[in-house]
Amino acid sequence: MKHLKELQSIIGEAVNKLDLPANPDTLYEPVSYILSLGGKRMRPALLLMACELFGGDVNAASSPALAIEVFHNFTLMHDDIMDNAPLRRGKITVHERWGHNTGILSGDAMLVLSYQLMMKVEDHLLREVLDVFNKTALGVCEGQQLDMDFEQRTEVHVDEYLEMIRLKTSVLLGGALKIGALIGGAEMQDAELLYNFGEYLGIAFQLQDDILDVYGDPDKFGKQVGGDIISNKKTWLLIRALELAVGSQKTELDNWIALKEFDNTEKVAAVTKIYDELNIRQFAEQAMEAFADKAFMALDAINLLEAHKQYLRNFADGLLVREN
Amino acid sequence: MKHLKELQSIIGEAVNKLDLPANPDTLYEPVSYILSLGGKRMRPALLLMACELFGGDVNAASSPALAIEVFHNFTLMHDDIMDNAPLRRGKITVHERWGHNTGILSGDAMLVLSYQLMMKVEDHLLREVLDVFNKTALGVCEGQQLDMDFEQRTEVHVDEYLEMIRLKTSVLLGGALKIGALIGGAEMQDAELLYNFGEYLGIAFQLQDDILDVYGDPDKFGKQVGGDIISNKKTWLLIRALELAVGSQKTELDNWIALKEFDNTEKVAAVTKIYDELNIRQFAEQAMEAFADKAFMALDAINLLEAHKQYLRNFADGLLVREN
Repeated sequence: MKHLKELQSIIGEAVNKLDLPANPDTLYEPVSYILSLGGKRMRPALLLMACELFGGDVNAASSPALAIEVFHNFTLMHDDIMDNAPLRRGKITVHERWGHNTGILSGDAMLVLSYQLMMKVEDHLLREVLDVFNKTALGVCEGQQLDMDFEQRTEVHVDEYLEMIRLKTSVLLGGALKIGALIGGAEMQDAELLYNFGEYLGIAFQLQDDILDVYGDPDKFGKQVGGDIISNKKTWLLIRALELAVGSQKTELDNWIALKEFDNTEKVAAVTKIYDELNIRQFAEQAMEAFADKAFMALDAINLLEAHKQYLRNFADGLLVREN
Repeated sequence: MKHLKELQSIIGEAVNKLDLPANPDTLYEPVSYILSLGGKRMRPALLLMACELFGGDVNAASSPALAIEVFHNFTLMHDDIMDNAPLRRGKITVHERWGHNTGILSGDAMLVLSYQLMMKVEDHLLREVLDVFNKTALGVCEGQQLDMDFEQRTEVHVDEYLEMIRLKTSVLLGGALKIGALIGGAEMQDAELLYNFGEYLGIAFQLQDDILDVYGDPDKFGKQVGGDIISNKKTWLLIRALELAVGSQKTELDNWIALKEFDNTEKVAAVTKIYDELNIRQFAEQAMEAFADKAFMALDAINLLEAHKQYLRNFADGLLVREN
């Protein structure tokens, strides 16, 4: 089994070698640009990993892996427009540099390019692979739409939130693993179990991200601790706290959310205190653990060499900082 | 052979029966909306027509035909955002009604949906059909980008303009015909000739549209005569006039283009007079005829029943009001 770093470097090479049309350069330069911004290339690496786990040749999977990366960057390009984001990975976003219209159109072209790359599989796999890809791509669109819808709503339930993060982030992890497994020669049943592993792991990972935003070590987290609290982001923690809070706690929480001007440190401390009183951290960690457990149960059920399952367990453990 | 009206009504029914996911309705309602605005359904009708010409069953082609219509409407949804258009077919545009973000995201979902629909072909055709569709889709993106680029440029050559309209409008006509032919059982060589027929016909049709904007019968044309002149749209006629005009004609044309405030009727009359002096109409009609001739030559070369070729000739004659 190749080390994750090796897989990531295979993707990096494939990105560098991607042969885009030369014209119109106004359409394709933004594509090269966003792909050159880097990132961990985690999703395509998962595709290669799944292929190898089932005995496939990673070289046979490098184009579909690149397809996943191009697709992921298409979603980033369009999401950045929708979020009005000035920066992506510390660099100016495509729509800020070339305008909204180019951001829309280059993104569209990337979605088509991702299909072209995904089709570089053997004929007998073509339909299955594209079925997974279609479903994944539509799920990601649905998740992004739910995320935007939730911003406009005052009340969101925990189950709705879980469905949103499943669609917005987890189906692509699951889809990448499933496609890799199919290319590697997995039976459909095993490919689906690996999909479940990825989907549950993705949800657990997102819940961990929500927890770390409040309770993470500022030196390790890499983002501003409390950023979600400052921006009233409807995370699992806030949604659950709004459900559980009553009386003066509820009033105080509502007040902090409604306040237009405030001291950041003060708001983070006050909301965290309410979370603590409501045991939100423990509840969130239980929810995260439950999804991690589901992921590992799906993994256990796969018909795969024990050593290869262990590889995936180690990978998941690296992503999730679990207590037990 | 079914009459064009019959084919269009098959598409209309398929649109009505399209089974979109119910949730999130904020994502899918704009999809139903834009598809319900109607239009001539010419592109999907061409796909069905091509299928039937080669002896195929139009019912086997209704999903791919619908894919072409969904794809076309995806491009309209995104183009309307880029063009800041308030109306589409006399109704409010998606981004005006639901906001830019929904216009972007629902459009993205439509592109994915179009792949799902396009895949409803027999396994042995899947790769060929999708290869054509990918190339077509990328071409349409490239054409739209060139069109936007040209708006920013002072000088555009006639050949660049022809390449732009080929990509922006003709490749989809050609692609629809080629896919229909393949589904109908055509040999690749015949499918490609039919593609060429569609592509050349599309260019001829666009040139006719440029001519009719200036010289069309106001009662028949359906748009404001001279609209392109008023908005300085870089049509074949304006581009060629800018190339041919010298001396005072050139100065006068440049002045009309630079003028911010003017009387519409006066500008249309003045620019038309310059076109007339330069014989622009005759040159444009010659160019249009040349592409129509290429279309008919491609058609002649197809290995197809003479009666079926005549059906396509009649169809093309209906589109093009030719002098000879």
